[in-house]
Amino acid sequence: MERDEQEIRRLVANWMAATGAGDIDTVLGLMTDDVVFLVAGQPPMVGKAGFAAAARAQRGAAPHFEGTSEIQEIKVMGDWAYMWSRLSVVVTPPGNGARKRAGHTLSVLRKEKGKWLLARDANMLTAA
Amino acid sequence: MERDEQEIRRLVANWMAATGAGDIDTVLGLMTDDVVFLVAGQPPMVGKAGFAAAARAQRGAAPHFEGTSEIQEIKVMGDWAYMWSRLSVVVTPPGNGARKRAGHTLSVLRKEKGKWLLARDANMLTAA
Repeated sequence: MERDEQEIRRLVANWMAATGAGDIDTVLGLMTDDVVFLVAGQPPMVGKAGFAAAARAQRGAAPHFEGTSEIQEIKVMGDWAYMWSRLSVVVTPPGNGARKRAGHTLSVLRKEKGKWLLARDANMLTAA
Repeated sequence: MERDEQEIRRLVANWMAATGAGDIDTVLGLMTDDVVFLVAGQPPMVGKAGFAAAARAQRGAAPHFEGTSEIQEIKVMGDWAYMWSRLSVVVTPPGNGARKRAGHTLSVLRKEKGKWLLARDANMLTAA
């Protein structure tokens, strides 16, 4: 259990670092094929393929991203887990000023072939 | 599994009806003691006691509430489940006009003594 928690914390750290570095392939390797991203005011983004297409469409014009995640709770139930976090990000589109966003996320994670992956994600960040 | 899904659908229907009727006690009976509600732009609301205090403080001045929930997915994992929904609500504060809000929710549910309860809830509704 302790070890699963540590692996989930590492998943989050890898996600933040890879997103910051614009390393889309690494980020794609951290989510399930059937991943669902839910964000206020936007339609759901369903599936890894959809995420990949959106991320690749942005390439070159991708904003610079820096963030910190403070995990508030991780609960592991066998090969499933949920987690909620306080997330703060600074997003800087090319040629534009930095925008700070902060708020909470609630995520469902699944262990596939021994590896924890993000499966469902609710993002409640607002302008900070 | 089928039966758990039906019970979770009934929990959602009961929740919406009791909230609409201003029946706080019934709503409180549908959540775990350690429930967490996450909403954009607000601090987390942690615990049934906190929910009860907030709901009772509003009594008399509680807005009229009508809503519909379209469940998109329920996944049961033993005594745990997650669910995401498309939720539309019309909130009418006393003496004020109706406000429509719509968006998604991601929820974690837990079965306690044979009864499904809401345990963690992420609310991504925005003005519609």
